[in-house]
Amino acid sequence: MKLSIVLSTQPAQFQAATFKGDLEVNLAHIAALGYNGVELAIRDPKLIDVDALEASANKYNLRVPAIGTGQAWGEEGLSFTDPNPQIRERAIERIKSHIPAASRFGAVIIIGLIRGIVKPGVDSTQAMEWLINALRECSEAAHPHGIRLALEPINRYETTLINNTAQGLELINRVGVDNFGLLLDTFHMNIEEPAIEDSIRQCGERIFHFHVADSNRWHPGAGHLDFKSILTALDSTRYQGWVSGEFLPKPDAETAAQRSVAFLRQLG
Amino acid sequence: MKLSIVLSTQPAQFQAATFKGDLEVNLAHIAALGYNGVELAIRDPKLIDVDALEASANKYNLRVPAIGTGQAWGEEGLSFTDPNPQIRERAIERIKSHIPAASRFGAVIIIGLIRGIVKPGVDSTQAMEWLINALRECSEAAHPHGIRLALEPINRYETTLINNTAQGLELINRVGVDNFGLLLDTFHMNIEEPAIEDSIRQCGERIFHFHVADSNRWHPGAGHLDFKSILTALDSTRYQGWVSGEFLPKPDAETAAQRSVAFLRQLG
Repeated sequence: MKLSIVLSTQPAQFQAATFKGDLEVNLAHIAALGYNGVELAIRDPKLIDVDALEASANKYNLRVPAIGTGQAWGEEGLSFTDPNPQIRERAIERIKSHIPAASRFGAVIIIGLIRGIVKPGVDSTQAMEWLINALRECSEAAHPHGIRLALEPINRYETTLINNTAQGLELINRVGVDNFGLLLDTFHMNIEEPAIEDSIRQCGERIFHFHVADSNRWHPGAGHLDFKSILTALDSTRYQGWVSGEFLPKPDAETAAQRSVAFLRQLG
Repeated sequence: MKLSIVLSTQPAQFQAATFKGDLEVNLAHIAALGYNGVELAIRDPKLIDVDALEASANKYNLRVPAIGTGQAWGEEGLSFTDPNPQIRERAIERIKSHIPAASRFGAVIIIGLIRGIVKPGVDSTQAMEWLINALRECSEAAHPHGIRLALEPINRYETTLINNTAQGLELINRVGVDNFGLLLDTFHMNIEEPAIEDSIRQCGERIFHFHVADSNRWHPGAGHLDFKSILTALDSTRYQGWVSGEFLPKPDAETAAQRSVAFLRQLG
């Protein structure tokens, strides 16, 4: 099992030196804990030195299987479904701007909260059209580079657009391009899927990335999800990708990371 | 198993005649489906004709095991933890005003969202003190009438105060009165409890009321919760109260109510 864990590059909140220092320290910890890769949360690739990032990852023998993009929504309010066409356009350009780094690492580009929500006054059919057009445009731009996009169904409390895998599979049909698929996250699945393992099997080869967190969003092993059964279902889809930890830093980040890798490794 | 289901009296949104008519229709449906009682959501007891309500419930041989109070938060913004002392006082008076109807029915008074949230600018220790004092005052007012209050741990997305049973049990200790306990809800427990059955056993005789909804907040049977195991754990606490359905009206209210009672009855 190829295990990675989410690491924020936090370029907006750090001076260049501090950022590099902290990133190095984090990468060293993550590698020492036995992870094979890091999933990088990047707000804006313009603020990242990709050469330095690649050198650091290589230094610790860590791969970068996926790039998270949600900070552009959280910190800048960019989304595919904003009623303002300029904001939608900026969101599309931002996602396209991840393609060079994604190509360097062979990483999946994650479409999480940057898809947006159905904002007040916006018709939901209209929002879905904006979403589909944006996903198609970004996927088509990524295609020549061999890069895939993965949209994450996210629970009802965090978005009003695409909460579960049934909606995700319908979206895939409507977008209609081969390099667009899903990122499944066990925390969200616990709330939204009628039967987690069945949903995994139904998504099959359209699972492009996989997040693990337990039912309470703590590290795997801290809640009541049956990860043995879940990962067996994932395996049955012939999934060749990564199992990436995205969970709360509780009781603290390092303990959570350590417990997660130990718990998942002993599942075999 | 004594089964009830939540029914809103919706006094603020209906003319008196419509309200009475709709209530009668709903009570007739609920009784015909095989429920033993109705849990009534009441925004303000002043707007309710308790005599008429009791006559209607009796007509259909339905008990009223609990009164929900959250509409006073949702529609009027009343809460135990608002920084405005007049709003806190109105919330306390509102809860006390449920005591006569609760006495008539022998119903538990539910403290759900009316407890409030930690509002911006409010210290969380201060909010917890307001909450404890309000709960103690209301419980002490209810005690001579033999009425109990049950606070519902509610998941992190809906409140910042008391999300899980561990916090609920600590709160019980701090309030320090015998007629204050917990309402456990399986939908919230699925998100917040490390192990649902263990939490039920730990709450033991302080479980004053019990809500069922499946993991996706649809009716029991529509998600992945193991209700056989959950209700066995509840039974092990010698719980003598009600199992009350509070779930989304999907695919529609009557179908959901019908499926829930059928599913729960076949569990034995």
